Amino acid sequence: MAPDVKPIPLTRAVAPFYVGVDLGGTSTKLGVVDDLGRPVCRAEDIPTAVAAGPPNSVEQIAAGVNAMIAQIGLQPTEVARIGLGCPGILDYQAGVMVNPTNFPGWHGFPIRDLLAEHLGMPVVMSNDASAAAYGEMWIGSGRGFRSVVLLTLGTGIGCGAIIHNVIIEGEHGHGTECGHILIDPSPQAPVCSCGKTGHLEAFASATAVVRRARELLAAGKCKAVAERTAAGETLNPRLIAALAEAGDPEALELILDTARYLGYGIVTLLHTFDPSVVLLGGAMTFGGNGSPIGRRFLQRIREEIRERAFPALVEKISIRFAALGGDAGFIGAAGIARMVHRRDRG
Amino acid sequence: MAPDVKPIPLTRAVAPFYVGVDLGGTSTKLGVVDDLGRPVCRAEDIPTAVAAGPPNSVEQIAAGVNAMIAQIGLQPTEVARIGLGCPGILDYQAGVMVNPTNFPGWHGFPIRDLLAEHLGMPVVMSNDASAAAYGEMWIGSGRGFRSVVLLTLGTGIGCGAIIHNVIIEGEHGHGTECGHILIDPSPQAPVCSCGKTGHLEAFASATAVVRRARELLAAGKCKAVAERTAAGETLNPRLIAALAEAGDPEALELILDTARYLGYGIVTLLHTFDPSVVLLGGAMTFGGNGSPIGRRFLQRIREEIRERAFPALVEKISIRFAALGGDAGFIGAAGIARMVHRRDRG
Repeated sequence: MAPDVKPIPLTRAVAPFYVGVDLGGTSTKLGVVDDLGRPVCRAEDIPTAVAAGPPNSVEQIAAGVNAMIAQIGLQPTEVARIGLGCPGILDYQAGVMVNPTNFPGWHGFPIRDLLAEHLGMPVVMSNDASAAAYGEMWIGSGRGFRSVVLLTLGTGIGCGAIIHNVIIEGEHGHGTECGHILIDPSPQAPVCSCGKTGHLEAFASATAVVRRARELLAAGKCKAVAERTAAGETLNPRLIAALAEAGDPEALELILDTARYLGYGIVTLLHTFDPSVVLLGGAMTFGGNGSPIGRRFLQRIREEIRERAFPALVEKISIRFAALGGDAGFIGAAGIARMVHRRDRG
Repeated sequence: MAPDVKPIPLTRAVAPFYVGVDLGGTSTKLGVVDDLGRPVCRAEDIPTAVAAGPPNSVEQIAAGVNAMIAQIGLQPTEVARIGLGCPGILDYQAGVMVNPTNFPGWHGFPIRDLLAEHLGMPVVMSNDASAAAYGEMWIGSGRGFRSVVLLTLGTGIGCGAIIHNVIIEGEHGHGTECGHILIDPSPQAPVCSCGKTGHLEAFASATAVVRRARELLAAGKCKAVAERTAAGETLNPRLIAALAEAGDPEALELILDTARYLGYGIVTLLHTFDPSVVLLGGAMTFGGNGSPIGRRFLQRIREEIRERAFPALVEKISIRFAALGGDAGFIGAAGIARMVHRRDRG
């Protein structure tokens, strides 16, 4: 995971200000950004009290926003908009989440309007994956581009795409569900979290890497991994990256295979969305730019793309790590709120 | 190929009018449509004099447009805009084609502005695949939807996508180059027209179907195909469809395999663009809705999608044949011109 962004002092910030809220199934991130996208502050994460129901959670989030604003000495009138990034499929007209997976009982609840009412400020809702992509485009690794795809590698694979400054979410909110693009139609392809086979997520998520490692362990391979897990360590991409960095060839192969699979998927993304840049974020970047293993991972992805993509496209595309880490969501939610604010002002 | 659309009489048409020009490497189609998208007339195709250079061709197209308008008794002032659909990558700012494959010497030529000058009317340039998708969305099989993907099955596989009424073309004009999405990463996957392996076009274009049939012939299979080609018939998807319709199981299998491969590709399109409807057009639809073989082809595609796509999406998507045949391009070019005209009017 890339490091979070260092906030700037309020005295150096450029008004107006935007609050970003990144609603997660476990915790919610909050921050204030200035008109140039620079975080002015980042609040402590608020536990999302999913089970306590949305009215309760919205009240806590509103209280968190008010406390955060007060703490840095910002007047509520200096905040132009609140950006609220939410997971899953959204009904933007109604300002509600649609059958959100990890939010039982939240379906159809007027979360946007209730938050606006609590805060006395307009709230702009956005999809969290789109928001993260927007954040990276605004002030992260996608800065300077208007066509950015962000793949978030973790338990699953998330994706946000902005092409020509237009956020792509599709007709039913399933657009850029790129974890579910088909990369291998063979019957022996692994099963995805959605129950179907051959999807990118079944090959290149953290879950998939651990599953492949387990299969190798079961076949008596990956001795180094076996030793470390026998000693009580958890089998996860971080352990695999550590072993690869220590010179274990099997751990490295697991990582480079993952890169190859991601390459397959990105080839398809280039021929559908045609972005300027594809960014890789999330927990599973094997150390990213700061690690030789992360850099080899990225290099292997690029090689696969060169091998597979329409030649004229290969020259034009940049593949790199995301820069904002866990802050991308709230920064992007604030950025989308700013975009709407500026459009409303004309 | 679906039948062309029957023009309506001018007396029943609704002003203003739009001229659509569908520039092809061999011939150029022209037509006039009314404000509801209904063709008022379709001119004889004009041979595109590619080798004679763009000034010459543009002059011929302009003459064709003027003759067509005069023939139906339309005043030039009743034409609000000319829509010009062009193949390949376009520079919309400059109104030029960028390294067009079948148009040597046309790179960078100010085709849009020269046509406007000849006609004394504003010309709106569009990509031909996007225009065809727009035409189908306007008055064809995609009517009533705002998120449409059109796959054009022929020598290659073309694609146009409009999502939430936004035309998707990507940052470099390679967006929706869906013939080149990866559907099979295995080393034995066939080579695509672009030189890379495993792309959809290498499995599901007319070229691919003929190649697979040849491979089967070489292996001593497909006796029925062998007999007909020995008798002088050309091996093409039309022959294969005729044999399948006559009950030949191997010909049918060739068609259903093609459907399966298309299903793989469409699964990916659903998880990237998330349209309401995917339309299949072009020369290779095996008779379309009018033929039992065409209907089985479509059915097999739907089955594969049900088998492979994210379950929540399968319920929402419609897969059907396109309706406008070869007219989709000029109708859509006119439709995009109308969209720009209406935007300009505010």
